[in-house]
Amino acid sequence: MSIILTSPLDMHLHLRDEEMLSTVAPLSAKSFSGAIIMPNLVPPISTKEALLSYKERILKACGKENFTPYMTLFFKPTYTKEFLESIKDDLVAIKLYPAGITTNSEGGLSGFDVEELRPTLTAMSELNIPLCIHGETNGFVMDREAEFVSIYEMLATNFPKLKIIMEHITTKESVEALDRFENLYATITLHHLLITLDDVAGGMLQPHLFCKPIAKRPEDREALRKVALEGNPKVMFGSDSAPHPQHAKESCGCAAGVFTAPIALQLLTELFVEHSTVEKLQAFVSDNARRIYNHIKVPTKRVTLEKEPFIVPTKYDNVVPIFATKTINYNIIKIEKIGDR
Amino acid sequence: MSIILTSPLDMHLHLRDEEMLSTVAPLSAKSFSGAIIMPNLVPPISTKEALLSYKERILKACGKENFTPYMTLFFKPTYTKEFLESIKDDLVAIKLYPAGITTNSEGGLSGFDVEELRPTLTAMSELNIPLCIHGETNGFVMDREAEFVSIYEMLATNFPKLKIIMEHITTKESVEALDRFENLYATITLHHLLITLDDVAGGMLQPHLFCKPIAKRPEDREALRKVALEGNPKVMFGSDSAPHPQHAKESCGCAAGVFTAPIALQLLTELFVEHSTVEKLQAFVSDNARRIYNHIKVPTKRVTLEKEPFIVPTKYDNVVPIFATKTINYNIIKIEKIGDR
Repeated sequence: MSIILTSPLDMHLHLRDEEMLSTVAPLSAKSFSGAIIMPNLVPPISTKEALLSYKERILKACGKENFTPYMTLFFKPTYTKEFLESIKDDLVAIKLYPAGITTNSEGGLSGFDVEELRPTLTAMSELNIPLCIHGETNGFVMDREAEFVSIYEMLATNFPKLKIIMEHITTKESVEALDRFENLYATITLHHLLITLDDVAGGMLQPHLFCKPIAKRPEDREALRKVALEGNPKVMFGSDSAPHPQHAKESCGCAAGVFTAPIALQLLTELFVEHSTVEKLQAFVSDNARRIYNHIKVPTKRVTLEKEPFIVPTKYDNVVPIFATKTINYNIIKIEKIGDR
Repeated sequence: MSIILTSPLDMHLHLRDEEMLSTVAPLSAKSFSGAIIMPNLVPPISTKEALLSYKERILKACGKENFTPYMTLFFKPTYTKEFLESIKDDLVAIKLYPAGITTNSEGGLSGFDVEELRPTLTAMSELNIPLCIHGETNGFVMDREAEFVSIYEMLATNFPKLKIIMEHITTKESVEALDRFENLYATITLHHLLITLDDVAGGMLQPHLFCKPIAKRPEDREALRKVALEGNPKVMFGSDSAPHPQHAKESCGCAAGVFTAPIALQLLTELFVEHSTVEKLQAFVSDNARRIYNHIKVPTKRVTLEKEPFIVPTKYDNVVPIFATKTINYNIIKIEKIGDR
């Protein structure tokens, strides 16, 4: 049986810059039609010039693939409506980081004062610019995301027309919040559908499975799987694929991030087939995102997968992917470009 | 102010063998009067010959320090009373590992059938040989110890005269069990008094803080601190100091174990002083153990510590200690041997 996915989208992707960008961008561009590109470079993307220049570097790195990088700004409460209007054609979303919560997030937000946020968030609502949030407090590592749910609720209540994307959710608490607010959506990564803290630290310590938010409990993974596998219209695939050079992962003080982009579609297919829900995969990897991000244009691509062993490479250049050397049961056997649809 | 500790004991110590033994044994022997030596070598210590030969190698590695290695066997349900009687003079305790639960525990117990265990545990009760247990199930990493409490209770109930030591406890559930059974005791490590999972995986991933059982939640650490700092008579210091070569810690698939032995007394003094309970430290690091293990002889040693900065070395040979390069506020300024007491 062939599984054909039309225009897969990765709604949360780190492409980095310079050498790393050259390594990883073509890998995503090959099998995805587009991706929401995270702005947490050093310094973060917060001006029109920086955004356009980064987009250009990405397109150059992708070569001839028909792949659209959906650009984001690093949220600042000082963005005015005029500024956002001036950049709107090139901007797909804005990403909010609490200060210091993950890689290169030092310049993030240090508090959630509704009145301080109101002008920018109101402008975003009016301009149909979604707000993507890394939702973690600075509390205990297993509680950070669940503690943040009250902030999601506060924002969803105060800005009912703002599309709020809870990025890379990892807990049942976040899943439950989806049902309570019409304007809350979520991305879910591949790795949080597959692993729990047991895989990271239950046997030997596995730095290549260490990420933020950290993988949680089995019951959290179940809650994530449920909404992903049923193709719940409020959740989208976002890999949060976050490459680091091998030495930064396999050392004292290992950086957070799991590199999954080049093997994500193969593993998602395997997971959905195993759960007899492969007919929902198209919604999870593309259709839901197109409906939620109703302002994006998506280049058409057709990706065909079949049951065929695929051995995950040891490395892509100097980046070790998730499940390196393991065998996945599904492989991409054909990728067709069909022009814009 | 000087803090004088008389005959400190480490009631849970890994000395390994060969080169590693030569590196780490002198470091414990210098400031401790004795230590319970874990038997999980490859193969594990399970015969009188192996035990005596290992004891000899340890004493040789310790040189002229007056330090007593309290030897243990790796628990097997096949040990007979005759065998235990024949080894009793050289045996201080027996250590039980569930199969596969930690480093070199593959030959451990794969089930807890009271009737299968009865002959050996009855003999141990009669011979006053304590049973030390690594109490974890093979469940989810954060739940393994709490899930094991019911097994502690089953054993404590069925063998009321057997001294059962819950080794390196890390949870409030284990602390609470201490009060329910007269014959349950516990060791607590230095690192579980100091860190939580946040320190291991809340920022960057810290392999040198990765151990089994894994550090738990803040409320668990509070429960451990309470009984340690009050000098609760049922708890003893056991470092579980577990050296691995640097390359085995800083790599993909990092081994479990924190190396603390040479800096444990300095850090314990700092902790107890900070909490204004330094007068309870003697009970925690020696007196409680002497009362619980009332069959051991303890060489007398007097260790004097003072408030003086001590920078933790980067390495001891090829072993990286906990908090390498950090400054501790207390230092050992004098160690006196006073002959047996």
